[in-house]
Order: sequence, then C-alpha cells, then structure tokens
Amino acid sequence: MRCVVLLSGGLDSCVSAALARKRCKELFAMTISYGQKHAREIESAKRIGEFLGVKEHKFIDIDPELFISSSLINKNMKIEERGLEEIGRGIPSTYVPARNTIFLSFALAFAESRDADFIYLGVNALDYSGYPDCRPEYIEAFQRVIDLGTKRGIEGKSIKIETPLINMGKKEIIETGIRIGAPLHLTWSCYAGKEKACGKCDSCKLRLKGFMEAGYRDPIEYETYPEWYDYRKLKPFKSPS
Amino acid sequence: MRCVVLLSGGLDSCVSAALARKRCKELFAMTISYGQKHAREIESAKRIGEFLGVKEHKFIDIDPELFISSSLINKNMKIEERGLEEIGRGIPSTYVPARNTIFLSFALAFAESRDADFIYLGVNALDYSGYPDCRPEYIEAFQRVIDLGTKRGIEGKSIKIETPLINMGKKEIIETGIRIGAPLHLTWSCYAGKEKACGKCDSCKLRLKGFMEAGYRDPIEYETYPEWYDYRKLKPFKSPS
Repeated sequence: MRCVVLLSGGLDSCVSAALARKRCKELFAMTISYGQKHAREIESAKRIGEFLGVKEHKFIDIDPELFISSSLINKNMKIEERGLEEIGRGIPSTYVPARNTIFLSFALAFAESRDADFIYLGVNALDYSGYPDCRPEYIEAFQRVIDLGTKRGIEGKSIKIETPLINMGKKEIIETGIRIGAPLHLTWSCYAGKEKACGKCDSCKLRLKGFMEAGYRDPIEYETYPEWYDYRKLKPFKSPS
Repeated sequence: MRCVVLLSGGLDSCVSAALARKRCKELFAMTISYGQKHAREIESAKRIGEFLGVKEHKFIDIDPELFISSSLINKNMKIEERGLEEIGRGIPSTYVPARNTIFLSFALAFAESRDADFIYLGVNALDYSGYPDCRPEYIEAFQRVIDLGTKRGIEGKSIKIETPLINMGKKEIIETGIRIGAPLHLTWSCYAGKEKACGKCDSCKLRLKGFMEAGYRDPIEYETYPEWYDYRKLKPFKSPS
C-alpha cells in the first residue's frame, strides 16, 4: 500500500500523516509553499517527513502572486484577530483562493505517477476556521473529479482521498496524535512567521485551546499565551522518538 | 465581464480564447508549462495572448518530474504513432496524470483573485484522443468543486467553466476559428518539438484532418504530410489581423 500525504508542517497534517504511516508501507510526502507568511512551516514539514521515514518528499513552490487577494499572502492586508467565539463564522481574510483544490491536484498527479492508492489530507470540518474547501461535501466533490478524470479512476482503481480528521475537533486531533506517537513537537501553526508562535492569531488560539482541552502542554514555544490558557494545570508533553 | 482563458498555444485553446475575447471585456490568460517536449507551444501561447490583447498573461512552471509516468514528459518513453482510426481508443501513453485538474485549479485561483466570472477551457470530447479529463462529466464534476470549494461559490456567484468546443470536432473548431478571426497561424500542436511540425503524431494528424475537412490549408509548416492530406485541393488560409 502506498500513500501520499500532504504535509503543511501544522498540527493536523502531522497527525494525518502519522495515521497514514500506520497504514501504508510506502509513504510519499508533498509540501506546497505559496509565499505564506509562516514559511517556518516548511522547515517543520521537512522534519516531520524525516521523522516518519518518507520514501520521497516533494516540495512544490507556487507563485504567491496568484493568491494576492488573501491576507495570508498580501503583506498590505492585515490579518484580523478574532475571539474564539468568532472563529468559524464567515470566511476570514486569510482565505486563499482554491488552495485545497490546487493542493489536491498536485497530490493527485504525484499519487498517480507513483502508483499510490491514497491521498491523506488533514482537513477538519469542525474547527475549520470558515474555509469552504475543508468541508466533507467539498472533499466528496473532489473525489468525483478523481474518479472521472484520471486513468486509474477510469480503470476502476481510483485513488481515494482520506480525511481521517474531518470530524474531529482540535482536542481529539491532539489526543489522537499523542496516542499514536505523532511528532507534535516538530509542528508549527502560527500565521505570524516570527521565531516563536505569536499566541494571538486564529491558528494559535485554536491550537492552544485544543491542547488545553486535551490536558497537555503545547510543546512549542510561544511569545505570549491567551489569558484562558493555564500552562500550570496541564501535563507535560513527552516527545516521541 | 472578466474571463480567464487557459492558453496552451494549440489550436483548440486559441479558438476557445478567441470566443472568450468576443464575450468578455477583460481577458486574463494563463499558460502552464510542465516540461512537455513541445515547449514551442509556450511561445505560440504568448503570441496568441498578444494578438488577443489580454490584460495579464500569467505563465506557470510545474516541476515535470511530477508527471514522469507520461511519454509526453519522460524522454525514455516513446510516443506511439497510431493510425487515425486508433486515436480515441483507450488512454494513450501521452496521458499526463491530473493535467486538466491542475490546470483548472490554477485557473480557478487566478480567476478568483482577479474577480473573473468565467474560465475558458478548450477541451473537446469528440476528438479527445482518449484523455479522461476532457469529457463533459469530468468538467461537471470540477464545476461542483468550484461551487462548493470557493468563497465566490459559497456566496452564490460561482465562477463558471466554459467549454465552448466540447461538442465540436476538429473540423468545426477550425471553421469556427476561421469565422471569428482566431489567429490559427500562430498556433502549435505537434508533440515532437522540432522546428517544423512532424506531421506524424496524433496531434498533427487530428489537426491536418480537421483542416482538410474544413477545406482550408493548415497555415503552419510541416516536415511531412500524411498521404491522405492533399494540400493542392484546399483553399489558402488568410491570416487575420
């Protein structure tokens, strides 16, 4: 069994890839860079790939100018800071046009040319931060594109998209990661792209909330913590090896 | 009205783009290079874009190693020469994994970030040469990905894929191109990538057959013609300006 995993360097793709590792004999990783402010994630992705012993790790660079309408890319736009209760309401300015569609397309070409059976994508629909291309109905629509648009699809051995985290919240993703020994200490989620995670952006907040609810300390370093994150009440995270 | 046109430099995308030109006030062209042997097409695409007065022409380079299982990319594989009656039966070795899926994904990001309403793609299902990602059911599946996976889709003003050539044969495409003044003399279709078109590959044969049936001479130069192509019986092609 061969699997392609999309590795962003974040928490979700790390747990998704660790699940693929348990299932597949050969793992192929793909990391796509598109000028996002958190290029630090790319380095994390590389380390996670090494940790999981991937057979081939493909790095793709996409012209960021294509996504100029996103605040994640356009440095003239400000990324809004929102309260936890606002996250998930409406589509935020960090929305990147067609991002998961481009990611899945590349993963699909990679999978078909390497004769892989599955593509693992770490999206989740609960803490989905308002992005339309993280929802189950979107994934189903893309699966149909694969079934109808590829040689393998036509020949009745279509490549399947696996989204093992789609119905999990951050708490459950973190618990799953800890249980299966995913290298969460190597991940990076912050949008701000500084040396330490900012602790203020949507991504940091969702992540810290997840660790808090799972009862573990987030192993990466933060500049600051939200007032509701009580470090002292949490168990220390033990890095897997 | 704004349109994105995918311009390969070939005959079909040229006619498709010329049709978009008639409909749309602002035209955005995108040309995607992926190490195909006929890189000569890229130059043709550029000239066609200039001829049509596009507002912005985006050139994208994709790592060809991703498509290594295609004879169009892999120089160790031979492109089969087939009789006209065999073309369209089965998927040929020139099949490029997920090609139109990657093309449409990029066009989609380009369209959404430029606030365009349509994506013009010059596929046709009749002379489709056996590629699964040229069929109407595939295009419909991708349309659903757009409707469900983009901000504009969610907001009820989804970007629409237009495939004006989908039910045309090469003859009709050429007749249409001549009628609307498409710059067919600037196009390039040959797979062989030499100075003149080879006249032997699937792509040359389909094209020459189309011109023959339309009653016009193909305006580009060929190394050799198939025996069934009778140059002398055809009207000369008059280049539009």
